[in-house]
Amino acid sequence: MKIHNFSAGPCILPPEVLNEAAAAVNDFNGLGLSLIEISHRSKDFVAVMEEARSAVKELLNLPERFDVLFLQGGASLGFYTAAMNLLPEGGKAAYVDSGTWSAKAIKEAKLLGNIDVVGSSKATNYDGIPAFNAPEAGTSYLHYTSNNTIFGTQFSGTPEAGVPLVADMSSDIFSRTFDANPFHLIYAGAQKNMGPAGTVMYAFDREAMGHTGRTIPSYLDLTVHAGKDSMFNTPPVFPVYVTLLTLRWMKANGGVAAMQQRNEAKSALIYTEIDRNPLFEGHAQVDSRSHMNATFRLTDESKAERFDALWQSAGISGLKGHRSVGGYRASMYNALPLESVQTLVDVMQALESEG
Amino acid sequence: MKIHNFSAGPCILPPEVLNEAAAAVNDFNGLGLSLIEISHRSKDFVAVMEEARSAVKELLNLPERFDVLFLQGGASLGFYTAAMNLLPEGGKAAYVDSGTWSAKAIKEAKLLGNIDVVGSSKATNYDGIPAFNAPEAGTSYLHYTSNNTIFGTQFSGTPEAGVPLVADMSSDIFSRTFDANPFHLIYAGAQKNMGPAGTVMYAFDREAMGHTGRTIPSYLDLTVHAGKDSMFNTPPVFPVYVTLLTLRWMKANGGVAAMQQRNEAKSALIYTEIDRNPLFEGHAQVDSRSHMNATFRLTDESKAERFDALWQSAGISGLKGHRSVGGYRASMYNALPLESVQTLVDVMQALESEG
Repeated sequence: MKIHNFSAGPCILPPEVLNEAAAAVNDFNGLGLSLIEISHRSKDFVAVMEEARSAVKELLNLPERFDVLFLQGGASLGFYTAAMNLLPEGGKAAYVDSGTWSAKAIKEAKLLGNIDVVGSSKATNYDGIPAFNAPEAGTSYLHYTSNNTIFGTQFSGTPEAGVPLVADMSSDIFSRTFDANPFHLIYAGAQKNMGPAGTVMYAFDREAMGHTGRTIPSYLDLTVHAGKDSMFNTPPVFPVYVTLLTLRWMKANGGVAAMQQRNEAKSALIYTEIDRNPLFEGHAQVDSRSHMNATFRLTDESKAERFDALWQSAGISGLKGHRSVGGYRASMYNALPLESVQTLVDVMQALESEG
Repeated sequence: MKIHNFSAGPCILPPEVLNEAAAAVNDFNGLGLSLIEISHRSKDFVAVMEEARSAVKELLNLPERFDVLFLQGGASLGFYTAAMNLLPEGGKAAYVDSGTWSAKAIKEAKLLGNIDVVGSSKATNYDGIPAFNAPEAGTSYLHYTSNNTIFGTQFSGTPEAGVPLVADMSSDIFSRTFDANPFHLIYAGAQKNMGPAGTVMYAFDREAMGHTGRTIPSYLDLTVHAGKDSMFNTPPVFPVYVTLLTLRWMKANGGVAAMQQRNEAKSALIYTEIDRNPLFEGHAQVDSRSHMNATFRLTDESKAERFDALWQSAGISGLKGHRSVGGYRASMYNALPLESVQTLVDVMQALESEG
């Protein structure tokens, strides 16, 4: 039976990416060696790293002044790294608190400077993207989480803040086009639209770096990594390679604009059903809804057992909501086909038709 | 042709590990899903992480008070993390400078306290393990690099220092038995004897943690990770899984004591030839020689082209020395069969017999 993988992350990857990744674990580039047993300094792997960095620049249409790195530690280390590289000693930054990951970013940044939380939707269990106050004078950047996986909310576009932007785009990078010019830094764990768990992408304006007055530990210094072409130390070889395969897949399938079209079609399908079907209601405010993660619940909890049986027997996997929201969450990352969303909608309608 | 993979790291892994890893990328545990597209919170992956942590405890015979984690950032982030967790504010630690990686560890630790370099072999291009002075009173720990991949030197055993030990064992973990009791922390990048690049193992005495008086960023706080069973954030799923497969392979093949026997046989074979064959000389002092990485050079450089042709045509790969030493380096990690070392020795003898 075909499995419809709605997992929130790590999540579905294109089948051709998985096939090619598995093959490379056995024999990479016909070398007679596995991808994971060759030197990261070999010309075969250096080519992987360079192509992956270039593909990000191309797919995101990054300005010339941007550098791209593939590092480790996930966005969780990124929260600290972002402030370490961009928040001057004694300086100030503005943060929007739109969910669990935003709150974690704020916690880490507070270790390094004055953090002004300019807007928060915490009081309503993060059911929407909050309005926020204009950052005060002297604010180095505004940080936000573009998509909130847990709550199913998403900034509808790039916010206007009057200061440079820093964004954790872990769960919607490559899902829609945007202009990178207002950003000093974009970072994203790979394990949603980009690849497997184990690498985190940093894209940053190199001119914005080096102004904190702080001595930065080597691994946390983005300029150190950039100076070594993202090979300051041994990179996570397999995660970077599978990320490259996924970036190639995006390029071969119309790039980010085409991903966006597919994603909008998928989210329109599920949200239309959530709004139409009296058995379901959404968690997120309508104007904050995410194209990546649709959060919803049954209006009649007594039907939960039956609904769970129906979607499980339809081959749907990973639909349970996060414990802080409950209900269900349909994660519809780039690699999820429209067909899988249609299968879920069919199940929702089947439940309704049972009366 | 069979390839004899002498790569310094990432390096050779057992063929059965590579086969099983490739299969899991296609379908993991018969789930119909790839290992890399399932949730790290799924019971299938939680079981992987738990078994991997337990296998380390068993293979290293760690005391009950030790915790084991699989994190990211390699030993390069470990240099800073070690000091962050163990060097008190205003405190002092002793470091032995036995190679490039030791020097890097010292550089990062100096950001956090007073570092006393108690011994160094830098003046002789790190050709041996230096003698070192007893740490002064008030020293929190002595840090050393157990094996120096680049220079082919290795501590012959656990040093006696009179203070707790911290060791970067990236390139000889699981290669020989040792008593973990004198250690506060052992850390090791996976990509030599343990698995593929992309995860780093920390094994530490939990009672030694939490005494620095410092607020530690979450990702760098080993107690934060331990409190979340090494799942504080999304772990590097594939590197951890392949590490588990390699740990299972070690257990099935006699454990660390058996690895040590094989490694001693391999290193005896190559060093005997280096010492016997007038065409070759070793880089490392004899009493500092590494069982993992044998560094050597031709006594007559004019034979380099011929020697290179010979070993390449014998299927030997990854034999070039690091640029800071030159010559050749035969890395003989756990998964390298004795047969591969014999092939290299045969080639060295073939060169000699050409006169």
